[in-house]
Amino acid sequence: MPAISIKGIHMPESPIRKLVPYAEDAKKRGTKVYHLNIGQPDIKTPEIAIDAVKNSTIEVLEYSRSEGSETYREKIAAYYKKCNIDVKAEDIIVTTGGSEALLFALGTIADPEDEIIIPEPFYANYNGFATSANIKVVPVVSKFEDNFALPPIEEFEKLISPKTKAILICNPGNPTGYLYSKEEIKKLAALVKKHDLFIIADEVYREFTYDGAEHYSILQEEGIDDNAIIIDSVSKRYSMCGARIGCLVSKNKAVITTALKFAQARLSPPTLAQIACEAALDTPQSYFDDVITEYVERRNTLVEALEQIEGVSVAKPKGAFYCIVKLPVKNADDFAQWLLESFDLDGETIMVAPAAGFYSSPNIGQDEVRFAYVLKKELLVKAANILKEALKVYPNA
Amino acid sequence: MPAISIKGIHMPESPIRKLVPYAEDAKKRGTKVYHLNIGQPDIKTPEIAIDAVKNSTIEVLEYSRSEGSETYREKIAAYYKKCNIDVKAEDIIVTTGGSEALLFALGTIADPEDEIIIPEPFYANYNGFATSANIKVVPVVSKFEDNFALPPIEEFEKLISPKTKAILICNPGNPTGYLYSKEEIKKLAALVKKHDLFIIADEVYREFTYDGAEHYSILQEEGIDDNAIIIDSVSKRYSMCGARIGCLVSKNKAVITTALKFAQARLSPPTLAQIACEAALDTPQSYFDDVITEYVERRNTLVEALEQIEGVSVAKPKGAFYCIVKLPVKNADDFAQWLLESFDLDGETIMVAPAAGFYSSPNIGQDEVRFAYVLKKELLVKAANILKEALKVYPNA
Ligand SMILES: Cc1ncc(COP(=O)(O)O)c(C=O)c1O
Ligand SMILES: Cc1ncc(COP(=O)(O)O)c(C=O)c1O
Repeated sequence: MPAISIKGIHMPESPIRKLVPYAEDAKKRGTKVYHLNIGQPDIKTPEIAIDAVKNSTIEVLEYSRSEGSETYREKIAAYYKKCNIDVKAEDIIVTTGGSEALLFALGTIADPEDEIIIPEPFYANYNGFATSANIKVVPVVSKFEDNFALPPIEEFEKLISPKTKAILICNPGNPTGYLYSKEEIKKLAALVKKHDLFIIADEVYREFTYDGAEHYSILQEEGIDDNAIIIDSVSKRYSMCGARIGCLVSKNKAVITTALKFAQARLSPPTLAQIACEAALDTPQSYFDDVITEYVERRNTLVEALEQIEGVSVAKPKGAFYCIVKLPVKNADDFAQWLLESFDLDGETIMVAPAAGFYSSPNIGQDEVRFAYVLKKELLVKAANILKEALKVYPNA
Repeated sequence: MPAISIKGIHMPESPIRKLVPYAEDAKKRGTKVYHLNIGQPDIKTPEIAIDAVKNSTIEVLEYSRSEGSETYREKIAAYYKKCNIDVKAEDIIVTTGGSEALLFALGTIADPEDEIIIPEPFYANYNGFATSANIKVVPVVSKFEDNFALPPIEEFEKLISPKTKAILICNPGNPTGYLYSKEEIKKLAALVKKHDLFIIADEVYREFTYDGAEHYSILQEEGIDDNAIIIDSVSKRYSMCGARIGCLVSKNKAVITTALKFAQARLSPPTLAQIACEAALDTPQSYFDDVITEYVERRNTLVEALEQIEGVSVAKPKGAFYCIVKLPVKNADDFAQWLLESFDLDGETIMVAPAAGFYSSPNIGQDEVRFAYVLKKELLVKAANILKEALKVYPNA
């Protein structure tokens, strides 16, 4: 039988996957599992988006243009204008989710063995995309104690080598919930200009900012048009994860020309979903206001409940819908598994994501987990209570 | 400004892309352009598929499982059973088009610098997928004179090196229309067993076989379950190119486990389209009978009309909806451009795909073009007539 070779085998597995069989077993035993482990919101998709598909009169479900349909790209450009990001349709390539935009971005800017620097903890699938593009991830540590603020610029500079092609940030951050300030973005901009690097900003959680904080996009910063690439997605914005629509945005023509070749090779992004997404752009502001209010309340509820638990602390999130929680345990991997395998409170338990998988450096974050506050408030309170009772009896604390 | 590096820049462009601006200019001049250059059928998508989406009651458009929805995979397995291909749901990973299945297959089986052998001419985007996976394509020539039958096995063996990981075939073939016989598949099976290689069979045109010829799938062949990977797609089968749904099929567990990691990194295939595709599997046989009848008539009409033109010959296709046509010109690239730039017959011209782009070896196929017979018969007759008149006046013949 043919041997499967190294690259495929080295594809990292998501930090949550290992736990899935334990969650399934728990459910088989009749235990109710609250899923705080994934970024699949329970928020309703705007009806306007689904209705657009239902009302379409398609007879032949054709390929769209590789760069996305013209009308959709025009409307995306108008959306960015409203966000004070000055881009045109020609600066946008519609992709199959933010995931594909990340793949195209890495393929466009880096050769095999090249390096990208990423503040950790980071979205674990960056590892997978880097592996499939044969690119090396160089992590720079951001700290729980600082709520995962931008690491000092000197820390980045220490890591820059002739192979460094880009810095990749996620803003607001998954898994940290951290929102970079305008000043931090300016520092990064100066850094990439100085060292002639790309900056890839994953801004898929752009709308999810709290406490009056405003998102400052990398493309709002002047003078780095040639360096900047935005990764975007409708998945969380309109609770349309299953649409599989995102985009790559850059004012650097060579980046767009090259990324387009990747887009052309795979022919087209999904056609039905583009119809839904084009309509979703007309979602009224009130939808977002409601969603943001809901997330702020969820965050407040969850953080408050968690902080009341002995030995537990939370890096307070200013955006997205995740937070990193420090637990009084040595090995959060083991604890997360034990929660599913051996614990229940009145027939209920929780599934959380061990944070070690979000760090690229070994031996960091072993006492941390990520909570996604994608459930209703009363369930979050229950979840915190389950955690509290579990910690009381966990044998390997 | 950051330099874009080699890999991205070396992404090959599709052989048709160069012609697109000329086609657009022609249209601006008011010339009608018949598109024989692309595999976008004009056939209607089964209504049952589109209706399934319209009737769905989705409120939250969620991610599906990374490997595709359970019910859809079960139904795909049943479809294969009907095709005498004995696979289970667990052998199937639903992908975003056959395109993504190709990417996953290459990523799974090969390391950077590894080689895959492909009979040429071949589907040009194999070059793009190989480039993005950093894999080297090693072509083995199949001949126009043989209607592009399988090259002698010795020709493959000459090319096998320690870096060779797989042989990739397309059956029935794009751009050749060639359908491999059972005997040819058996020869390939023996070859990959002998040399411990994978065989990747792109069978997206499985249903499109003519003149009573039957498709023999690589997975119908016994004893090579560990070697074989099928690439599949709904794009052409149900004229659902815009759905972006395909699949990767293998009975080799390690292949599936590894390909699944690529699938998990990108989270999920499109959800709406999976609903459509699940329903499409109930398309009645009469739909296919009609479609096949239509394609056979189109093929016969086109081939007959082309062969009546002085100096033109056709490699007679037994499947898919393409054929390679030899023209009395030195440089079909130039001719195809000239057709758009400088020729019209009563305000009409044709766009065809120069075949050189389907060869990986230099200097082959320069007098060949690919016709896709995805238009109605009367238009194909018109197209052949345009070709005939054009050849009479083409200055660089
Ligand atoms: C930070 C971040 N980037 C990108 C993605 C990819 O999302 P999608 O491919 O659904 O757009 C996610 C999904 O969770 C994410 O959290
Ligand atoms: C031979 C072959 N394989 C794969 C594909 C990819 O198709 P899709 O990604 O739409 O499934 C095509 C499309 O034309 C093709 O001709």
